[in-house]
Amino acid sequence: MTEQLHEKTISELAPLIKEKQISPKEVTVAVLDQIEKLDSTLNAFIDVTAKKALQQAEKAENEIMAGNYRGPLHGVPMAIKDNIYLADEVTTMGSKIHQDFIPKENATVIEKLKENGVIFTGKLNLHEYAWGATNNNPHFGACRNPWDTDRISGGSSGGSGVSTATDMTIATLGTDTGGSIRIPASFCGVTGLKPTHGLVSKYGAFPLAWSLDHIGPLTKNAQDAAYVLEAIAGYDSKDPTSVTVSDTDYLNKLTGSVKGLKIGINEKYFFNHVDAGVEEAVRNAITSLEKAGATIEIVEVPSLSLSEYAEMITITTEASAIHHQNLIARENDFGDDVRFLLKLGEIPSGVDYLQAQQIRSQINKEFKQLFNDVDVLLSPTLPFLPPKIGSDTGQINGVEVGLLDHIIRFTGPLNLTGLPAVSVPCGFVNNLPVGMQIIGPAFSEGRILNVAHTLEQLHPEFKQKPTAILSMH
Amino acid sequence: MTEQLHEKTISELAPLIKEKQISPKEVTVAVLDQIEKLDSTLNAFIDVTAKKALQQAEKAENEIMAGNYRGPLHGVPMAIKDNIYLADEVTTMGSKIHQDFIPKENATVIEKLKENGVIFTGKLNLHEYAWGATNNNPHFGACRNPWDTDRISGGSSGGSGVSTATDMTIATLGTDTGGSIRIPASFCGVTGLKPTHGLVSKYGAFPLAWSLDHIGPLTKNAQDAAYVLEAIAGYDSKDPTSVTVSDTDYLNKLTGSVKGLKIGINEKYFFNHVDAGVEEAVRNAITSLEKAGATIEIVEVPSLSLSEYAEMITITTEASAIHHQNLIARENDFGDDVRFLLKLGEIPSGVDYLQAQQIRSQINKEFKQLFNDVDVLLSPTLPFLPPKIGSDTGQINGVEVGLLDHIIRFTGPLNLTGLPAVSVPCGFVNNLPVGMQIIGPAFSEGRILNVAHTLEQLHPEFKQKPTAILSMH
Repeated sequence: MTEQLHEKTISELAPLIKEKQISPKEVTVAVLDQIEKLDSTLNAFIDVTAKKALQQAEKAENEIMAGNYRGPLHGVPMAIKDNIYLADEVTTMGSKIHQDFIPKENATVIEKLKENGVIFTGKLNLHEYAWGATNNNPHFGACRNPWDTDRISGGSSGGSGVSTATDMTIATLGTDTGGSIRIPASFCGVTGLKPTHGLVSKYGAFPLAWSLDHIGPLTKNAQDAAYVLEAIAGYDSKDPTSVTVSDTDYLNKLTGSVKGLKIGINEKYFFNHVDAGVEEAVRNAITSLEKAGATIEIVEVPSLSLSEYAEMITITTEASAIHHQNLIARENDFGDDVRFLLKLGEIPSGVDYLQAQQIRSQINKEFKQLFNDVDVLLSPTLPFLPPKIGSDTGQINGVEVGLLDHIIRFTGPLNLTGLPAVSVPCGFVNNLPVGMQIIGPAFSEGRILNVAHTLEQLHPEFKQKPTAILSMH
Repeated sequence: MTEQLHEKTISELAPLIKEKQISPKEVTVAVLDQIEKLDSTLNAFIDVTAKKALQQAEKAENEIMAGNYRGPLHGVPMAIKDNIYLADEVTTMGSKIHQDFIPKENATVIEKLKENGVIFTGKLNLHEYAWGATNNNPHFGACRNPWDTDRISGGSSGGSGVSTATDMTIATLGTDTGGSIRIPASFCGVTGLKPTHGLVSKYGAFPLAWSLDHIGPLTKNAQDAAYVLEAIAGYDSKDPTSVTVSDTDYLNKLTGSVKGLKIGINEKYFFNHVDAGVEEAVRNAITSLEKAGATIEIVEVPSLSLSEYAEMITITTEASAIHHQNLIARENDFGDDVRFLLKLGEIPSGVDYLQAQQIRSQINKEFKQLFNDVDVLLSPTLPFLPPKIGSDTGQINGVEVGLLDHIIRFTGPLNLTGLPAVSVPCGFVNNLPVGMQIIGPAFSEGRILNVAHTLEQLHPEFKQKPTAILSMH
């Protein structure tokens, strides 16, 4: 059976669109049909902007036919997490309070994708205000895992993970404050990249916790993540945390070789208290990389034991600072879990918050030190398989553990430090996907995407699709 | 009567030292004699390192005689506020808890002054841990105002203001978190510069509130401030807030002309609730600058009404985060006022702290906007004359007002924003000096020092000395 248009990656589509062998309209129709077919079951979309998307596709087609090809994202349909502003579109943040909010301006990342000729097909489901990791949304419904619809997609960018995994979009953008790109990427079996803090402008994304927030792509493979990142990276004066980086060429770093790469493994934190099936899949992937020419070194990050505390204090306090007035005025318009977390965030003292920031500095120093010795650090993205929708717990080797604290245990330290990390599929346990996290020093996106890309080349079987749901009609 | 060596400025001494007409030893002996004569009354010094100073002077003399002249600070004696680390010297922070603390390393500013050939004569009195503005120190005694020894010197850099005003040193360094350089400069009748945040490294200064802390010179005039600033400015990788600035030539900006200068006046905040005598002196100085060719424009900074709240939340919380463990373990080793402030700083929530930071951003934006329209902003440094030692209040037009909140009212916004500000003498009321604050946009130190320098040229009578105390013997 021939691969259909919506099943293709950016790297497959781009040359076909460029050479006018396929039209942006055909691709757009293909993903819209897929949404039509699957989304009533999966609930990845809060809004499908089909009509506008087709108009944009028409425009892209005309431009390309006229010889004005803008580059590899031209005519490629993308869906966007619904906490990133699209001008004149309702942008809900997955909330009741903002259910009718219409931003006047595009987020900087949207503006950049638009300049690249991207077609916007709709707004993706997320955990309410991105403040949680299940995407069991009380206002817009749970976003369901395509591998087992009784299980969570992961969050907060659940709609991004699900739509990418099921070909309802070619690629997506998500946001990540404690793991919200990498968690749904891992649970849904796609590639999710949290770039270095400051590399991608956050202007026009509704904040969850500003010192931890990041925007990044969820895509079908590492190469596609590089395509999207090249489009959205770059200094933006509208974001005070934005930085100037000279080298934002990522595709040319995807050599497919890890020969001589020094891989760090931190057993004490990143391999502690992990479900055996998950651990096995990750260790096997590491062994594959070793066989392909990488070397392994055991490394230490002593202060990581304090990272969960620092992460929780920082995220709860910053989130509560943002929602403080609404928590007073509209308490009952928040879902139960988000209301609880926002109340929790009113508790820490300023001194607690600042001491958490001191811990962050210390962890940052230790990571910097570590990357003098190794090129990347590898870990599981998550300590367990996707929990059931509605449960407050996950299971590690059959034992129930608290969901929220464990779900961000391996991803959170990279929000604290701002270091780049990508989650890439590395196998399956009980027909559920497992993700491996590849971490690098600041601005090493090319390097970590190359490790992901190499693993994809070594193991095409990791890229399986959720066939049961896809064959549904 | 000929001016004696200790009475000279850096600009007067430097050519004499360079030309070997006077020896660093002679200058050092002159300031040490002056300390001997006055300091039992004024209490500006916590420690006088006479022996080491004379050794350094000997070394400087030998270097210069051998033809190795390092530049204008070579052989110039300076005393240093005792919260800036000198390696292998007891550095007390004006505290009981750190009374025996010996740093292993020099602060970056000390290292830079050392490279410039400065001679270090001693450690200056300060408010305990710099957390207060009276310099009525419970462990080392009150540092007294040389114009009226019953009055405060101002703080926290009181020793710096007093020693400079009375020729016990040629120049000094202080630190400024809410006004701690500018307040004693104003009360003692000298020039005190708080540079732009990030211009001067803070590495090796004991922090009071790290996001508000600055190091800068207190000197006999604006030109001397430029000499010291040129020596201490510059990027330092050891200070994470340090920035790279291309132009750190300040002396060449001291043209002595303000022709065409656009002066902003903010009546609502900076001229509200000011003692009539102080206000008159400042307005007269502004009129002088106007007559010399500057123009005046009324400007608004709407969010300044929130700046005292933001300053107090930020300074108390950060200070309490630093002293948190000692407040638990050694509560009774703090003086009463500092203990109270440290307890106060445990109260604000993390949300309060973060909302204060949002106010800071807003004030910063408004100042940036303002400096599109004017070159500098002028204000009184303080709303009142120096209060009596031991009093909790100052007097504005005969009415008692709370000391701590009013004493940092005009200086604090420049710590919140990090903008440069210099306090320069602008007249006298009841034989007590009055200071004017000159504020500029980020990294405009050359410009604001030139306004100070011009005022000094227009009004040599503002540079009077506290003759009653100086004639004491």
